[in-house]
Amino acid sequence: MRAERQRMDKKKSLGNVETRYATFAESPHELLLEGGQKLGPITLAYETYGRLDADKSNAVLICHALSGDAHAAGFHPGDEDPGWWDAMIGPGKAFDTDKYFVICSNVIGGCKGSTGPSSINPAAGKPYGLDFPVITIGDMVNAQRYLIDHLGIGRLLCVCGGSMGGMQVLQWVASYPERVRCAIPIATALKHSPQQIAFDEVGRQAVMADPEWREGDYYGHGQPERGLAVARMIGHITYMSDKSMEEKFSRRLKEKDYSFQFKTDFEVEGYLRYRGDNFVKRFDANSYLYITKAMDYFDVAGDSLIPAERRAETRFLVIAFRSDWLYPLYQSQEIVRQLKRRHADATYCEINSTYGHDAFLLEIEEETHLIKHFLDKTYKGYNVR
Amino acid sequence: MRAERQRMDKKKSLGNVETRYATFAESPHELLLEGGQKLGPITLAYETYGRLDADKSNAVLICHALSGDAHAAGFHPGDEDPGWWDAMIGPGKAFDTDKYFVICSNVIGGCKGSTGPSSINPAAGKPYGLDFPVITIGDMVNAQRYLIDHLGIGRLLCVCGGSMGGMQVLQWVASYPERVRCAIPIATALKHSPQQIAFDEVGRQAVMADPEWREGDYYGHGQPERGLAVARMIGHITYMSDKSMEEKFSRRLKEKDYSFQFKTDFEVEGYLRYRGDNFVKRFDANSYLYITKAMDYFDVAGDSLIPAERRAETRFLVIAFRSDWLYPLYQSQEIVRQLKRRHADATYCEINSTYGHDAFLLEIEEETHLIKHFLDKTYKGYNVR
Repeated sequence: MRAERQRMDKKKSLGNVETRYATFAESPHELLLEGGQKLGPITLAYETYGRLDADKSNAVLICHALSGDAHAAGFHPGDEDPGWWDAMIGPGKAFDTDKYFVICSNVIGGCKGSTGPSSINPAAGKPYGLDFPVITIGDMVNAQRYLIDHLGIGRLLCVCGGSMGGMQVLQWVASYPERVRCAIPIATALKHSPQQIAFDEVGRQAVMADPEWREGDYYGHGQPERGLAVARMIGHITYMSDKSMEEKFSRRLKEKDYSFQFKTDFEVEGYLRYRGDNFVKRFDANSYLYITKAMDYFDVAGDSLIPAERRAETRFLVIAFRSDWLYPLYQSQEIVRQLKRRHADATYCEINSTYGHDAFLLEIEEETHLIKHFLDKTYKGYNVR
Repeated sequence: MRAERQRMDKKKSLGNVETRYATFAESPHELLLEGGQKLGPITLAYETYGRLDADKSNAVLICHALSGDAHAAGFHPGDEDPGWWDAMIGPGKAFDTDKYFVICSNVIGGCKGSTGPSSINPAAGKPYGLDFPVITIGDMVNAQRYLIDHLGIGRLLCVCGGSMGGMQVLQWVASYPERVRCAIPIATALKHSPQQIAFDEVGRQAVMADPEWREGDYYGHGQPERGLAVARMIGHITYMSDKSMEEKFSRRLKEKDYSFQFKTDFEVEGYLRYRGDNFVKRFDANSYLYITKAMDYFDVAGDSLIPAERRAETRFLVIAFRSDWLYPLYQSQEIVRQLKRRHADATYCEINSTYGHDAFLLEIEEETHLIKHFLDKTYKGYNVR
């Protein structure tokens, strides 16, 4: 079933794609961060799929989650797997590249080509480490705005993303409402609850407990792999649901003998270790710290999202998943409540899924159905105007 | 409010109590473990409160959870705080020591006086470390049985416990049904789900990722404190609920400035770090590994609890808490379903609480109401017979 879907995806795939880089080195493009510090020059890694209309009205910005990157769709030459949301982006897909110009950029603070703690600090000639300033979701969005300016786009047809991507969607509306025609925040929140902060904090503590972390100054020595793997394992539990774990692993044993001495015996343990070990090969530990902090600081509740005096012009499609206990339904419902209070045009959709928070990456059919229609309608309305 | 309750508890307190130790050194008391290995001599730390009847019909065994110990009630001379379930055990309390003889013992594998991985291995003249054999909930109960024999008690009026204590309750019924008049499993399960295993496994990984763990051979060098603290922090998140965290911390800041560099800024972070740091002073890291594994291995689903051919003689009171997402309601309901299938006399009570899994330690009033009555009724029925 999944193999078949994969083949289908390949057929409709964008084929080979390429990551590009834009550097904003000039002084106006030195980013003034919400924390008051300046960061620059900054580089953003990004990819684009499809073609920008003559009137530049068909641009869709996709925002990635905690561990994502600019490579949202298509294949990098030689790679087995396509980009992280390939099933949603391509010819005929939810974000139909025959119609739309799709952009995805790696967030600042990240480690996939955009400026982050593992980048060279020009003032010091070595990686920033903890000299990298605190960044916020607002800073990430401000950096993306440079890119959108750079691409010559005034107003985005749509900004869409799940989890931390959804926070960026909300932040775009809060910071640049006139530049967002429609917004699709998925499986996200106006702000983290203490439980969400707590899970992030334990992940950070796991990283910082690893002596290989060296107070963030580990570049050239190798990553704090064990701590980061533990952090990722905690994350994975929260991305799944009790039910999806039951369906995937139940209590099946990998190996069991009574002389085990804490080797892997349940399948779920093997899975978590595998995911943890894999993660450390592709993600920078300091980026993990900075990005999770940005999520914890994020808070557009109250008047921050849409000020009281302003009527929202942006159309909204808010999507949540019933088994998502990391970003529970009530958080998406609260987004909708605040939008309705501002008389925004907001549609709320709950998708039945057992996948938990991961559902935003997996419930392709349902999401396609909702998004394709919503986007087409917004696009047509836009062109009629 | 809580201070007042504390004062009230002091008034009705047992006063000073003492931990005692029983060692089973003789060959029949060498424990044959479920894993096939032999362990001995074994020592059990235990406390008793109240007086054993002449006909020995009023004995209640209290089983502790993961990080508990034999000191369930009363005060150790010089201590500020009483035992871990003092609000439930004492004159006039749920387990009324004016009527009942209450016993609590530290599990084997533990580190509070009973034989565990930090005990001296007589064969090696140094602490067991990872030479300690794998132990199961069944082994813990078999060791407790020696103690009950040693105290000259044939049949226990009641076995009660929450969380891992509840597993021991179920195991007592599975192993020695004729010796348990009534059983009160609280906030527990017939077996761990993959999600529960996953949380335990991440905790173990956090401990084992700490180089101070030294493959379990850290005695004399100091504990793997940082890893164990992370494990405990993960645990604490799962013991609370989204709602109780919201009520206790919301998003209140301890300190916030944009030069924070991963210090504590949200209150919930400070709380978790405090609980983690405190735990490592009082708990052995290897015990954490062995005991969580025992919980993960536990499985009395199906015929294990009560074989098909046997009608259950034990009366049951099964208690669960609505906000407990670590041991969700469906797990307690499954216990009741299996009991009913064997025509057992089983009462199921769901308590409304926002405390999450911690509720079994905090919802004293509700638990007292349910247990006091159930116990008295069983006791009277017993004496009438």
